[in-house]
Amino acid sequence: MSIDVLLEKIREKNNPTVVGLDPALAYVPAYIKEEKFNAYGKNLMGAASAVLEFNKILIDALYDIVPAVKPQSAYYETLSFYGAKALYETIAYAKKKGLYVIADVKRNDIGSTASAYAKAYLGDVDIDGENFSPYPADAATVNGYLGTDGVEPFLKECRNGKMIFALVKTSNPSSGELQDLKIGDKTVYQTVAGMVNNWAETAMGKGRYSQVGAVVGATYKEEQAILRKLMPNVFFLVPGYGAQGAGASDIVDAFDENGEGAIVNSSRGIICAYKKGYDEKNFAVAAREAAIRMRDDIVGNLRLVGKQK
Amino acid sequence: MSIDVLLEKIREKNNPTVVGLDPALAYVPAYIKEEKFNAYGKNLMGAASAVLEFNKILIDALYDIVPAVKPQSAYYETLSFYGAKALYETIAYAKKKGLYVIADVKRNDIGSTASAYAKAYLGDVDIDGENFSPYPADAATVNGYLGTDGVEPFLKECRNGKMIFALVKTSNPSSGELQDLKIGDKTVYQTVAGMVNNWAETAMGKGRYSQVGAVVGATYKEEQAILRKLMPNVFFLVPGYGAQGAGASDIVDAFDENGEGAIVNSSRGIICAYKKGYDEKNFAVAAREAAIRMRDDIVGNLRLVGKQK
Repeated sequence: MSIDVLLEKIREKNNPTVVGLDPALAYVPAYIKEEKFNAYGKNLMGAASAVLEFNKILIDALYDIVPAVKPQSAYYETLSFYGAKALYETIAYAKKKGLYVIADVKRNDIGSTASAYAKAYLGDVDIDGENFSPYPADAATVNGYLGTDGVEPFLKECRNGKMIFALVKTSNPSSGELQDLKIGDKTVYQTVAGMVNNWAETAMGKGRYSQVGAVVGATYKEEQAILRKLMPNVFFLVPGYGAQGAGASDIVDAFDENGEGAIVNSSRGIICAYKKGYDEKNFAVAAREAAIRMRDDIVGNLRLVGKQK
Repeated sequence: MSIDVLLEKIREKNNPTVVGLDPALAYVPAYIKEEKFNAYGKNLMGAASAVLEFNKILIDALYDIVPAVKPQSAYYETLSFYGAKALYETIAYAKKKGLYVIADVKRNDIGSTASAYAKAYLGDVDIDGENFSPYPADAATVNGYLGTDGVEPFLKECRNGKMIFALVKTSNPSSGELQDLKIGDKTVYQTVAGMVNNWAETAMGKGRYSQVGAVVGATYKEEQAILRKLMPNVFFLVPGYGAQGAGASDIVDAFDENGEGAIVNSSRGIICAYKKGYDEKNFAVAAREAAIRMRDDIVGNLRLVGKQK
């Protein structure tokens, strides 16, 4: 689905947020694990089944209030090929519920290998004349360190209506080690922003924003304002709200003057909300309440600064 | 397995090369695909089964002459969770045959997510008290754009005897777009090399080389010599020989004065060798002959420049 569909989903729900489905096994309520371990064994298969069940119940509780989910591949990969199946089924289930799905995979490689990754998450593979979608997401995160030829196969999928979010300024404490160094009068992350902006121009949506987005950490407020200007047509995926420490006032500069142009992620803050004073069986209720609080917090702050009426 | 085990395997076989297992479906001989499509259908499962069979026959033909294999994750990911299973089984089979296995995954993320990736490829996961190795490789490739805190969970596995290879200078045509830009008097890739060198010092092997290696493209000869000096204790994984255009004389500077310190990858040059004049049923013979030619080419050139007796 295109950037225009994502924008429409955000408008419909008046909610520029995405829930990160990062299901570390420690986040899954004990009663679900027990049920699945009894059925499949205390092993990778049992754990993957528990993770999928956790995700499905979360999606059921959230799909009418949030526009998008972002499964983080790493947590599925820790459960080997059983986890890969849980990732596939999570994506398929979320899409069936009308959610926009961002596969957070941060893939990067060269030529034909980059092309294989682009097909895996955004395209089709041809098995001697039959077509299959390996992991049918709407968007994927990518790392542009290798330069344009590594990103080009993803851009091709963007021109077919899919999206990428390229890492620009990440939300972690060490992100500045390389990203903040100066290349002439620009930092590395500003230089990467220039590359992303060029890629974006080759795959515009129907309106102001491109099919090519950027990852811009919520934990770096000043950088968001700089990047919003450097990449006027690039939609931002903003991680770092909540558990990583950023609040709603830290991310208003990621948005444009109409309160659009960005989607803010929270993972643990939503899916582990039940750990703060709820019975674990009410994890979905806790997640829904946390998602509503996050929406109201972010939309409220956009109003406060005059970016929404 | 540690860098010291890898060095020993290279010495035993007098062969500093690694075969890239990048099994695009188009590389798999028709007779294998036909057999597996008949058994499992012309679908992702049939394709993954064909890929695994291709890999196993290649490994059988190569394990006594090459020290290592490098499965490229992207090709397995294009076959969804069936491909993930083929990756798992390829790694397990190669290890059973005594090969050193480098999972080429170029993973990168922050904090707990990076930790999940490190466990997935190099460590164990704990399923409520039971331990499993999701993808039991000896080494993994990583992308350091996010800085030290994203690499730290991998360094922890390096201190437990596993290895990483961090991207420094990649072999593709666009690699210079960002990697060759100047930060003060150093390029971006030289700056990253400095970061990698610091990481390497925290996880030394028993001899000269660290558990932390670097990816340095064979297609950039001058850069190899610079990087060999900048990272004296860092072992290099060198892609780009063969199908990407570099020859044995292009990669001698990646090696130290004793002809050690690097391992050179070829993927298509070996696994698709049968496409140049062989019957497809002899693909394993063709791969073995190509691997021997590559070994002799590289070792011959190391002798020529006085790095081997």
